[in-house]
Amino acid sequence: MSITPHKDPLEAPSKERLRLWLRFLKASRSIETTLRENFKADFNTTLPRFDVLAALSRYADGLKMSQISGVLKVSNGNVTGIVDRLAEEGLLVRVSVQGDRRASLVRLTQRGQEEFARQAVAHEGWVNDMLSGFDAEMARALADDLQALETSLAAEPDSDG
Amino acid sequence: MSITPHKDPLEAPSKERLRLWLRFLKASRSIETTLRENFKADFNTTLPRFDVLAALSRYADGLKMSQISGVLKVSNGNVTGIVDRLAEEGLLVRVSVQGDRRASLVRLTQRGQEEFARQAVAHEGWVNDMLSGFDAEMARALADDLQALETSLAAEPDSDG
Repeated sequence: MSITPHKDPLEAPSKERLRLWLRFLKASRSIETTLRENFKADFNTTLPRFDVLAALSRYADGLKMSQISGVLKVSNGNVTGIVDRLAEEGLLVRVSVQGDRRASLVRLTQRGQEEFARQAVAHEGWVNDMLSGFDAEMARALADDLQALETSLAAEPDSDG
Repeated sequence: MSITPHKDPLEAPSKERLRLWLRFLKASRSIETTLRENFKADFNTTLPRFDVLAALSRYADGLKMSQISGVLKVSNGNVTGIVDRLAEEGLLVRVSVQGDRRASLVRLTQRGQEEFARQAVAHEGWVNDMLSGFDAEMARALADDLQALETSLAAEPDSDG
């Protein structure tokens, strides 16, 4: 790589942070686009479908629809369509909840677990390739910074105005 | 802030990079959500509308519709709707191009420039608040890392396994 480091003197913090945000957004979109393309090409699937399988893979007992929506932060409607399709494909099942006639839990089938495992390995590989410029230590440090950022964002809900 | 640093030994690089990506995506979405809410609350506008004004603000001579789409990486159709609305509101105008009867350029009006300037100041302030955990030097360093990442992503178009 022949990257010329940016040697100009620092601008005002707000300018540097704005530049950081714009780069951040751009990188995040690039990575997401590549992941979408790879999921489509290699598994004929989408990122939200993968996200649903990933969420379910962490809960052997299953999740309520509202919990899946919460994980995805997309509308219930969307999740319903995705879950219906994954059920048709035999990757998950709906099971009724003891003592609550209206509720049901969504759970991966054996095939769903296996399919998710294959996709997760590929996903990790793609991310590993794209982020190979960060060694393990840098990746850890930056992830910790982002965790701290996330915590501070969650702590001040809308200072509005 | 009372953030407990992550002291576990490093995992395999691919795991650390995966964790980094997940945090990265989460932070990027949180910030975007806050920006959307703030734009709505304070300017009754949206992020794509702001992005169109921002793109136009950098080109005093105006941009073709296709160039605006390129900047936004959204469909032409979308951009058309946004440009129509911004034109109705008097923030931009379409001007015809000398020597090319079918083409037209989109350009900010004086009012559009003023409105964008107000929104840009607010936007920078919101970003500055959210990223205040990064000082100017860290912000610069991280932005440079992301620039390098962007460059390396652009350099290897689909190693499609």
